[in-house]
Amino acid sequence: MIGKLIVFGVGLIGGSCALALKARDAVREVIGVGRTRANLDDALRSNIIDRAYALDEDWMQELRDADIVLLAVPVAQMENVLKRILPVVSKHAAITDAGSTKQDVVAAARSAYASCPEANMAQFVPAHPIAGTEHSGAAAAFATLYENRHVIVTPLDETDADAAQKVAMMWQTCGAKTLIMLPEQHDQTFAAVSHLPHMLAFALVAELAGRPEAETFFMHAGSGFRDFTRIAGSSPEMWRDIALANRDALLEELSRYQAHLDHMYAELERGDGAALEARMKRASEARRHWEKVFRERKR
Amino acid sequence: MIGKLIVFGVGLIGGSCALALKARDAVREVIGVGRTRANLDDALRSNIIDRAYALDEDWMQELRDADIVLLAVPVAQMENVLKRILPVVSKHAAITDAGSTKQDVVAAARSAYASCPEANMAQFVPAHPIAGTEHSGAAAAFATLYENRHVIVTPLDETDADAAQKVAMMWQTCGAKTLIMLPEQHDQTFAAVSHLPHMLAFALVAELAGRPEAETFFMHAGSGFRDFTRIAGSSPEMWRDIALANRDALLEELSRYQAHLDHMYAELERGDGAALEARMKRASEARRHWEKVFRERKR
Repeated sequence: MIGKLIVFGVGLIGGSCALALKARDAVREVIGVGRTRANLDDALRSNIIDRAYALDEDWMQELRDADIVLLAVPVAQMENVLKRILPVVSKHAAITDAGSTKQDVVAAARSAYASCPEANMAQFVPAHPIAGTEHSGAAAAFATLYENRHVIVTPLDETDADAAQKVAMMWQTCGAKTLIMLPEQHDQTFAAVSHLPHMLAFALVAELAGRPEAETFFMHAGSGFRDFTRIAGSSPEMWRDIALANRDALLEELSRYQAHLDHMYAELERGDGAALEARMKRASEARRHWEKVFRERKR
Repeated sequence: MIGKLIVFGVGLIGGSCALALKARDAVREVIGVGRTRANLDDALRSNIIDRAYALDEDWMQELRDADIVLLAVPVAQMENVLKRILPVVSKHAAITDAGSTKQDVVAAARSAYASCPEANMAQFVPAHPIAGTEHSGAAAAFATLYENRHVIVTPLDETDADAAQKVAMMWQTCGAKTLIMLPEQHDQTFAAVSHLPHMLAFALVAELAGRPEAETFFMHAGSGFRDFTRIAGSSPEMWRDIALANRDALLEELSRYQAHLDHMYAELERGDGAALEARMKRASEARRHWEKVFRERKR
């Protein structure tokens, strides 16, 4: 049982974690700290949190007996929030995050801990729950978001085993499976399977929306387009931060993808049906195999 | 009530049309003609069709009293099938297709009709039902596939109004809304909203599947990846044909997309968060607006 959980950023990610723990009676109280009052009021009304503070209100005293502090704010804000937390947070609290990139969060944490010598980095447990929808805000949160999902934990050399265990238990209680990775390996992998697809989907919709024929295009777009572009409805602010935070790995993936697309373009231009079909077949077989494994994992 | 419907290619598209008509008692009998016996047997077993013929069997006599002939074969096979049909098909039948591209089907039809002077092109009604899943074959067919979907009809100058009406009625009976477009406009629009996304999804999965880290990538891919790549599970043969059939329009769309991606790459490389966010915001707003309109259309 977690005593007090403090969630910074009570949106889809932080809010769903709180809801999942409450649904299982696995937390005594949840405190929410956020930027906008309207969102905090949504969170209070939905019983996601028990008390709410705007960032500029006096939430400091809540930190003194916190068990877990979950930073579910955009990646670019982690360092600032950490700097404000560290001087007052309980030495027994585990501090964790839900950022989509890990090397930059680790760097932000190192910088924040360096600025507060009395705090101990052993309590910091970088993590990334692999779940989400294209919606954001407390109103989008739901208790089953993490069921059968993965949460990647990327512990540091300094990380205390008990703190890591506390964070892993929290996510497991939410229904997720926790996996350990190195921060670099995490960032490279998610550049390929998540950040790149988001960029590609944003690019397609932005390109079509800017055309004079945009209205005709959208009128005729069907369910293939719907699924392909679902992630293009995601938060621009959040994805700007993720793209910048994971810039090197993402540029590398973009380059590879563009090279691949150049090959397909050339095959199509010269009417090379066999080459095109071979490429499509590789994709189709891999995708069908993946779908089967993915479904089994979800059971 | 349609008397006799003959479906060439009893897969997801042709099979679902037959099932939808049968579910509404809107057809007396459905004859299926196809390439593989196993798929025809599936179709017989599921009561999609009442009689089945392999392409090399003697299905000619069935054509003499056909009301509608639906060509649901890959685009590249239309001309050959039409050439075999035209000498024997009833003068009163409407002949239509379900091809994903229209200019090439029109060209194939013109060529087939030119080779059979006694046939009358007035009976030919090019069409494209905008529906599908990533699955193919008779076993994937279901009666509600066309409900609230669009079917684009691209009548020719020669097309007889009664034949066009018969085909439109058939699709409306399946639950679809029929819309008229010019073949060129159709091909340009679907290059952008359907053929391009398919190429992009095939490219992503083929690229990742070919990497040494493929297993790690797929293990960590989540629901964003699942939706983005769903269409990469589609039939390589069918999409090879579509890409080749709509080559010019698709190359044009690919070029535009690549240029757009180059801009995003440059923005990311120079760390221009404002430009990236503006692009993502355009996409996100357009996508959210589209989703709302799309959902209302489906009601």
